[in-house]
Amino acid sequence: MNDSRPIGVFDSGIGGLTVVKALRDLLANENISYLGDTARVPYGPKSPETVQRYAVELAQMLMGKNAKALIVACNTVSSVALPLLTKKFSVPVIGVIDPGARAALQATRNRHIGVIGTRATIRSGAYEKAVRAIDNRVRVSSRACPLLVPLIEEGLLDDDVTDRMIVRYLEPLLADGIDTLVLGCTHYPLLTGAITRVLSSEIMLVDSAQNCARAVEKMLDRQSLRAAPANRGELHVAFTDAADNFLNVARDALQLSFGEIELRPLP
Amino acid sequence: MNDSRPIGVFDSGIGGLTVVKALRDLLANENISYLGDTARVPYGPKSPETVQRYAVELAQMLMGKNAKALIVACNTVSSVALPLLTKKFSVPVIGVIDPGARAALQATRNRHIGVIGTRATIRSGAYEKAVRAIDNRVRVSSRACPLLVPLIEEGLLDDDVTDRMIVRYLEPLLADGIDTLVLGCTHYPLLTGAITRVLSSEIMLVDSAQNCARAVEKMLDRQSLRAAPANRGELHVAFTDAADNFLNVARDALQLSFGEIELRPLP
Repeated sequence: MNDSRPIGVFDSGIGGLTVVKALRDLLANENISYLGDTARVPYGPKSPETVQRYAVELAQMLMGKNAKALIVACNTVSSVALPLLTKKFSVPVIGVIDPGARAALQATRNRHIGVIGTRATIRSGAYEKAVRAIDNRVRVSSRACPLLVPLIEEGLLDDDVTDRMIVRYLEPLLADGIDTLVLGCTHYPLLTGAITRVLSSEIMLVDSAQNCARAVEKMLDRQSLRAAPANRGELHVAFTDAADNFLNVARDALQLSFGEIELRPLP
Repeated sequence: MNDSRPIGVFDSGIGGLTVVKALRDLLANENISYLGDTARVPYGPKSPETVQRYAVELAQMLMGKNAKALIVACNTVSSVALPLLTKKFSVPVIGVIDPGARAALQATRNRHIGVIGTRATIRSGAYEKAVRAIDNRVRVSSRACPLLVPLIEEGLLDDDVTDRMIVRYLEPLLADGIDTLVLGCTHYPLLTGAITRVLSSEIMLVDSAQNCARAVEKMLDRQSLRAAPANRGELHVAFTDAADNFLNVARDALQLSFGEIELRPLP
């Protein structure tokens, strides 16, 4: 229980900071090293082979920081690269999809779960597969919401245009009868307020970032990898290219504080 | 006047097809080879050095197709890489910024030009510089419209959410007193209808894609590089990675027809 090595967290860009925020809230004494591949964001439209190659590169960079675990704070990478990363690296690897799927299964009462995400995540059917691998009697209705990421990145977190798009995206799912909604994109926790406004209080909201953080906590306990309780958890943030305006949006909305950002150009 | 080599056109992604459309309309007998860097789109947030390196790679790939000219159908590349491309390659190089700036100067009566574009293009001040290099008594008001690209890519070309965002973006420019508006992003010609609805008929709209095509025509004439009038202009389209849904949006909206798309993975 005295492992001060950092938890390595990576994402295709900046969105994965919602997972960092959830980890900070839950595991304040853990050191965290975050790496966002801003040079090559977004991963969604890229082929699975390309995403796997990039994921291995990022994981290697974090292993160079002596990471004690690899947290894949990206739905696209989680949906195509977890088996490969688990095989290649000796440290535990945790993604965002399985924890979200498990939390949704616990939350649903009518056994009808909704999932929203980017077009790539929804097309991959990753949440549906993860849910059905555990309980195949559950129905999953999915919807790609491709405009939510740009609206979030522009900081329109409380804005009538964003609310309008959320209503448009969610209406078919609600009409379909879901009682639980999985936020299947690491950007979406920044819209929790807006989505809650649109949803009736009957609908359970499942935040993949929070549930990923809970899975990390359990894994650290199980494998005796926790930092000392008195450790002052440090957060180190690096990007592969200059970060855009969304970094300010995310930092402000998440109230995350971190020091100087490291630029780690890709080879 | 019998040069059947293709005109090479490249862009960071799919948006440059608006320039292809303008070229097809104006120069139907010319062969065109288009290359979109979908593997690395978007270029806007990337550093100038990175964009320059990518631009040279794409230009080299088109030169491998024996291009007789290089058309940079991308504002980001046009704003940072034209001198380098001109130096590196022996064929004529034409971007979208200078033709747009010249057309705006011809259109304005009150000598007050508005420019809209992505955040990167507006931040670069490229149109302002190009305008002032010709006439420094002209006033230029610029506005980044970062949500227009995702709205276009989603195909919301005639949609109240898009109209609302256009109004929000254009209002300050109109209040400022512009009489001419430059569409400083190769995606924006797809919104000509929507933007025309919002603008009063007093405002002149300058389409960079169209003006780029006119500049290409003049250059071909000047340098005797035209294809034979009877040549059946062929359009060849290649991308560095799988193209996303926007390709269907663009193809339908532009009514562009092309055969099988070539996938040209980057080394």
